[in-house]
Amino acid sequence: MNTAELYQSYQERMQKIADLRNANAVLQWDQETYLPAKGASFRGRQISTLSEFSHQLFIDQETGDLLKSLLDRGDLADDQQRNVIRSMEDYTKSVRYPTEFVRRLSEQVNRAFHAWIAARKENSFGVYEPELGKLVDLKKQEADILGFEEHPYNALLDEFEKGCTIALVDKTFSDILPGLTELVDRITAVPPADDSFLNQHFPRQEQWEWGMFLIRQLHFDFERGRQDISEHPFSISFNRNDVRITTRIDEQDFGNMTWSCIHETGHALYEQGLPEAHYGLPLGEACSYSIHESQSRLWENNVGRNLPFWKHYFPILKERFPKQLDGIGLDQFYRGINKVQRSLVRTEADEVTYHFHVYIRYELEKQLIGGGISTKDIPASWSELYKRHLGVTVPDDRKGSLQDVHWSHGSFGYFPTYSLGSFYAAQLYRAATNSVQNIEDQISAGNTAPLLEWLRERIHGRGRYLYSEELCREATGQPLDSKQFLDYLLHKYTVLYNL
Amino acid sequence: MNTAELYQSYQERMQKIADLRNANAVLQWDQETYLPAKGASFRGRQISTLSEFSHQLFIDQETGDLLKSLLDRGDLADDQQRNVIRSMEDYTKSVRYPTEFVRRLSEQVNRAFHAWIAARKENSFGVYEPELGKLVDLKKQEADILGFEEHPYNALLDEFEKGCTIALVDKTFSDILPGLTELVDRITAVPPADDSFLNQHFPRQEQWEWGMFLIRQLHFDFERGRQDISEHPFSISFNRNDVRITTRIDEQDFGNMTWSCIHETGHALYEQGLPEAHYGLPLGEACSYSIHESQSRLWENNVGRNLPFWKHYFPILKERFPKQLDGIGLDQFYRGINKVQRSLVRTEADEVTYHFHVYIRYELEKQLIGGGISTKDIPASWSELYKRHLGVTVPDDRKGSLQDVHWSHGSFGYFPTYSLGSFYAAQLYRAATNSVQNIEDQISAGNTAPLLEWLRERIHGRGRYLYSEELCREATGQPLDSKQFLDYLLHKYTVLYNL
Repeated sequence: MNTAELYQSYQERMQKIADLRNANAVLQWDQETYLPAKGASFRGRQISTLSEFSHQLFIDQETGDLLKSLLDRGDLADDQQRNVIRSMEDYTKSVRYPTEFVRRLSEQVNRAFHAWIAARKENSFGVYEPELGKLVDLKKQEADILGFEEHPYNALLDEFEKGCTIALVDKTFSDILPGLTELVDRITAVPPADDSFLNQHFPRQEQWEWGMFLIRQLHFDFERGRQDISEHPFSISFNRNDVRITTRIDEQDFGNMTWSCIHETGHALYEQGLPEAHYGLPLGEACSYSIHESQSRLWENNVGRNLPFWKHYFPILKERFPKQLDGIGLDQFYRGINKVQRSLVRTEADEVTYHFHVYIRYELEKQLIGGGISTKDIPASWSELYKRHLGVTVPDDRKGSLQDVHWSHGSFGYFPTYSLGSFYAAQLYRAATNSVQNIEDQISAGNTAPLLEWLRERIHGRGRYLYSEELCREATGQPLDSKQFLDYLLHKYTVLYNL
Repeated sequence: MNTAELYQSYQERMQKIADLRNANAVLQWDQETYLPAKGASFRGRQISTLSEFSHQLFIDQETGDLLKSLLDRGDLADDQQRNVIRSMEDYTKSVRYPTEFVRRLSEQVNRAFHAWIAARKENSFGVYEPELGKLVDLKKQEADILGFEEHPYNALLDEFEKGCTIALVDKTFSDILPGLTELVDRITAVPPADDSFLNQHFPRQEQWEWGMFLIRQLHFDFERGRQDISEHPFSISFNRNDVRITTRIDEQDFGNMTWSCIHETGHALYEQGLPEAHYGLPLGEACSYSIHESQSRLWENNVGRNLPFWKHYFPILKERFPKQLDGIGLDQFYRGINKVQRSLVRTEADEVTYHFHVYIRYELEKQLIGGGISTKDIPASWSELYKRHLGVTVPDDRKGSLQDVHWSHGSFGYFPTYSLGSFYAAQLYRAATNSVQNIEDQISAGNTAPLLEWLRERIHGRGRYLYSEELCREATGQPLDSKQFLDYLLHKYTVLYNL
């Protein structure tokens, strides 16, 4: 076979695997949006079967042979070579997992998830703990299977963020946590922002229409995607021409839906901007979890909680909700949507205190996987860390260690990508506004296209060509520097609260 | 391996194949309901890939070996043996198809379908004819591949209806066509029913709520299914706990939605009543196309266009649409919803003239596959047959030979199952009302549960244990007898029109 034919075989194989994975994504989307109550059990097995087939096809010896042969060829185009290199990285990792282990892990995740549901109901971590304990044991085994340097948790971090290590995350946090703590102290020393106007009655249908309007304004392409309702908002992609997001509506909480719409749109814009020619191949995929999160956070916070954006949209919002926003000025609105307070629940936290929540989970995960603590110690450690970093007292498990679903999914090493996403977002936003002069002026005029264009070119269109850090360096001229995030917060909140 | 283990392997294999097929059904459902405009191309390839995987897994040598080994065992339970026998029938048929032929057929279907769309737009059969001609050639080859006795069309009939032949369909039609013609002559000799009240403005949302109410009343289980909107109504099942139907709403045509809801509910009740224990196996599947259609037609016509049903529901309907139905009495309503007229379009035909539409297509298919006519002759033959059997003049191709999508899908041999379904329906409904005394009284009181229970036991719960004819004999004591359908019509319409 000549190189072109060989590459064609590789591409066809990868695209079939993508078809199976994307079909599975449709099943998952449907499960969260339209599945009838009793359809869950058969759906579960259909999803498992599809996962099994796509996994088997990928780890097949033939995939490895194709990749090896292609790597030996000297005449691949640059894009092609990069695809093959990335696929080989994925392949090398995937084949390490014994089928038997994958099955055991998947079964234990299922048990842990159901134990978590039951524990939430009873508000008792003890109901969850035995199954979570077994899951942590398996995750430790997984770290051994994958191999690691220095700390087993590094193996799990690497699963969500290629090349990510404890050293990197520790440094990233330690660069900003003292400054963040000081900022929170200063903000909470002045009178709190009044955000009570957000908690009036905002009728369901009107909120929905507002959200749809906003999404469209942000250039979510409804010919290549849609929005639906689900219990927890999420975004999911079946290919760049079919990217779906969901939201939820709380009639007593205007913020809940609005910023979830903007957040998920950020994810979706990324997926809709991936290169079409590389469907099923690494260059047609998003770079990483943290870069994905950088896109959602950038739109949610750096754009969507910022003054320029609301200069344009607040008057429109007032027209849509004249009664609820009667007498509220732009400044008051802006302060209200940026209220900072120490709190118990991560998903309700503001953009300043949020990262303490993530840091606490990261600290616990490190120790759980490293063996410093066991799952039995979680509630006590959780309380202690919340007291220390956020100064709050955890009243019960539901508002404490039972609040996140992630661990029950076996996702250890995932939380840090939430913070990394915010840090990348601040750095990207600064680079964009520095390099294109009128981006913020345009946002003030209701036009986010120049910003989107900058991201399309430097982030979305690049697929997985680079790792997160390399992509950041290429786009901003520097590696990840979390101090830029702190600078962004210091500047914004000093002005906002007249500190 | 002992027999239990062997059967277990067979069951697991079949259930995985079912998972793939059902996943594909989810993709198809989504394509007709929620797919964004530009998502179609990638969706097409995802569906193809899943079909390919499920087909390959089924025709794999290992499937055949398992089935052969099981058939040699003498210690299978009766249900198990029947599953294996049916799977072997399917396997024997499936392995006959060369992969290359399947691909060519699927590609030609794709071309013919798009040619049909284009031809509809231009109202010109000539645009469609060349691609349809190539498709007919492939269907002739398919008949040769499958093998047949007497006539190649028998091979295609057998694909949709096991054991069905020209001899059987000819006899079934010839038993009733003269009587049907006479009945239509008598009805059209008296003044036509007034159904103009059905074509007033019935608001979308109110129609939707009425349809949902009706479906629920008919015992469609919304915990195990749902209804959505699509361009063409259909029913689809992913397993007995997730059965979905769709409808469409025409605000100027009350009948359009109401009887599509009842029709699709008939299909869905069948799927929701299949035996759960046999998921993925023949006994967990519907018997045949014609028996499936018997269920939709029975509910749509024998129940849903009958007087007992509307004795209960008409007063409720009047409460929901007081303005539109002001001054309309039950008798007038009943006559209006059973208006009989010779017409051009199959999907708009009443239950009496409908079968001429089917018969015409059947006649054309027989000749196309047998070589008596070529695709070029279709428009002329179509016009001639409509003139002869329905006395109407075809004004253009859109209202003539371009009205159905079926041929463009390669579905030759499918149409007869529509008529067979109605014939089975009449026979089943008579048997049910004869054997359980109060079924119609209960329907008059708004309770269709006794009828459903009869069908659950004799039809739904039987899966594919029997062929259509055997099932009919077991349930009604007689083989298919289309004269019972004619009797049903004669009785109903003689009374209705005072003939």
